[in-house]
Amino acid sequence: MRKIFLSAALLALCAPLCAQEPARKRSAPEIVKAAPAADWSTIAPDDLLVMTLSPDAAGQPRHVILQLLPPPFSQGWIGNMRKLAAAHWWDGGAIYRVQDNWVAQFGDPDEDTPKAKPLPAGLATVPESEYVSDIDLYVAREKVRSPAVWQKFYAKQAWQAKVKRYGSLERIPLKDLGELTDSDDRGDGYARETGFYEGWPIASNSEGFWPTHCYATVGVGRNNSPDTGTGAELYAVIGTPPRQLDRNIAVVGRVIEGIEHLSSLPRGPAPMGMYNDKSKNTPILSIRLASTLPPADQPRFQYLATDSASFKDYVEARVNRRDSFYIYAAGSADICNIPVPIRRAP
Amino acid sequence: MRKIFLSAALLALCAPLCAQEPARKRSAPEIVKAAPAADWSTIAPDDLLVMTLSPDAAGQPRHVILQLLPPPFSQGWIGNMRKLAAAHWWDGGAIYRVQDNWVAQFGDPDEDTPKAKPLPAGLATVPESEYVSDIDLYVAREKVRSPAVWQKFYAKQAWQAKVKRYGSLERIPLKDLGELTDSDDRGDGYARETGFYEGWPIASNSEGFWPTHCYATVGVGRNNSPDTGTGAELYAVIGTPPRQLDRNIAVVGRVIEGIEHLSSLPRGPAPMGMYNDKSKNTPILSIRLASTLPPADQPRFQYLATDSASFKDYVEARVNRRDSFYIYAAGSADICNIPVPIRRAP
Repeated sequence: MRKIFLSAALLALCAPLCAQEPARKRSAPEIVKAAPAADWSTIAPDDLLVMTLSPDAAGQPRHVILQLLPPPFSQGWIGNMRKLAAAHWWDGGAIYRVQDNWVAQFGDPDEDTPKAKPLPAGLATVPESEYVSDIDLYVAREKVRSPAVWQKFYAKQAWQAKVKRYGSLERIPLKDLGELTDSDDRGDGYARETGFYEGWPIASNSEGFWPTHCYATVGVGRNNSPDTGTGAELYAVIGTPPRQLDRNIAVVGRVIEGIEHLSSLPRGPAPMGMYNDKSKNTPILSIRLASTLPPADQPRFQYLATDSASFKDYVEARVNRRDSFYIYAAGSADICNIPVPIRRAP
Repeated sequence: MRKIFLSAALLALCAPLCAQEPARKRSAPEIVKAAPAADWSTIAPDDLLVMTLSPDAAGQPRHVILQLLPPPFSQGWIGNMRKLAAAHWWDGGAIYRVQDNWVAQFGDPDEDTPKAKPLPAGLATVPESEYVSDIDLYVAREKVRSPAVWQKFYAKQAWQAKVKRYGSLERIPLKDLGELTDSDDRGDGYARETGFYEGWPIASNSEGFWPTHCYATVGVGRNNSPDTGTGAELYAVIGTPPRQLDRNIAVVGRVIEGIEHLSSLPRGPAPMGMYNDKSKNTPILSIRLASTLPPADQPRFQYLATDSASFKDYVEARVNRRDSFYIYAAGSADICNIPVPIRRAP
């Protein structure tokens, strides 16, 4: 069967032929597979939400795992989400909107109607200024408050010289990660620079840093400015990365398992992908913070640490594809085309 | 209900307040809606394939409309596709692979097995050199062969000075289309420049021009180089634009209606999104060139001409969002985030 991607069968041919060649660089999947345990970081169960949908038409269970962003990003909304999960507020909610090449949205299908479900007390109202973060200010604050946290940021960096050169933690441009071609300089029109921070794709300009909208990114539905939403209504991206939403809406996390349970849902026929008929909604049985589940039921995930040598190699290999399928290597990759490897803990 | 996109309700407030302001620029949807009939180009029925899938679980018909690329792009494969449609070769085929955030692939599910369906005689074997085209050479050739065709290219250009300035038809960079910010210079890492040609997104470098992989792009499945595929096995992109495939595989067209019948299919559980169980394949009842259908059954589509003033305004508005939802305008848009407007002929 013809395939777009084939396994690197040709590589086997190289062994006898390439003895005099310099060591072959590995492909991105090979790098991820070979990454040592030390290069994988555990995702804390307090940063995972487990969404259970009603079983599918064949009676199969459907679980969707969401990972929440670390500080300093979007913590006001994320705090609300932890409260909503603790209150079991989403239980009985639904996925009520699926728009092709855009988003699947879920929460209370009766929101903004007289039948709307009351929100728990104590949710924060978060200002728009929180869409963009100043990591330097955050680090400086933490440095004063907690030398250990500060040390965590700086001490584990492999590229202190680069941090110094670029004047800011994690402001290191992609082109400095590997053997990129000059075209990488033009890799992102939505930001001055893009990079990775604690396992997440971020973008920056002179005003600060913000998390980017990529496939499977989860954000907070809202009405028009200055409303920023509470975190009760959420969407997951199921198409072209809508980078124009960056800094315009709160990114709070990403789906790390089960995105297909959202992306393969029937599209809603009404404007914006709403279902005309509420019986077409997909019921949410529950959303729980993983840390509140019995230990045996807690999903355990790891991400490839974005300050590890393996990740550096992975980025370089995504930029300069050398899988046997490729004729041309693009010499560049936009931030959404470098998904951070995530796996179930072995 | 909270929405990611709301209608431009705030604009109504502007009328009394903004009397002294310069004329408000329109949003992209407003520009498309107001585009005069002359700015819409008809898609020839010979450039449309109508794919009919088996009805869905509710018995509803499923049609997917594919538009084929114009010369000089990929015409060898496209010629094969017209022959395959004329031979009714795809009838009884299937969608046999759906991989999340990647592609839906269709053709003969028994391909590369002893049960493979024989291909019709006379299909072309197309070389890899056809992945990239030289439009200037094409125009020069046409100029000799057909002054009328040549005139069509140059006479209808609104920007002859720009054509001259950039030395090549349609090599006009995006930043010269509107009031883009300087960040646009860094809008694409996969090519020297991107732009539009006869209604299609294309990219270029010093070697030539090629069609880009965006959401809903249709391409030709193949095995490893130097095989380029025949056009019998096709895929449609259903996720993040896989721009790394540009120049590595033949782009032949795009889905212009019914992509949801591909993107919402269950993902295949086997490697690369294959279905383990052939009963899970989605049967193809038929694929027909629209020009071979009875006139009453021929779908009639138009695209917003990419050399029109309306399209120029549309690009500018996609780059500098001014819908009431937005706080920040990105000041840039990558080529896949500027979908060419397509509509049923009114």
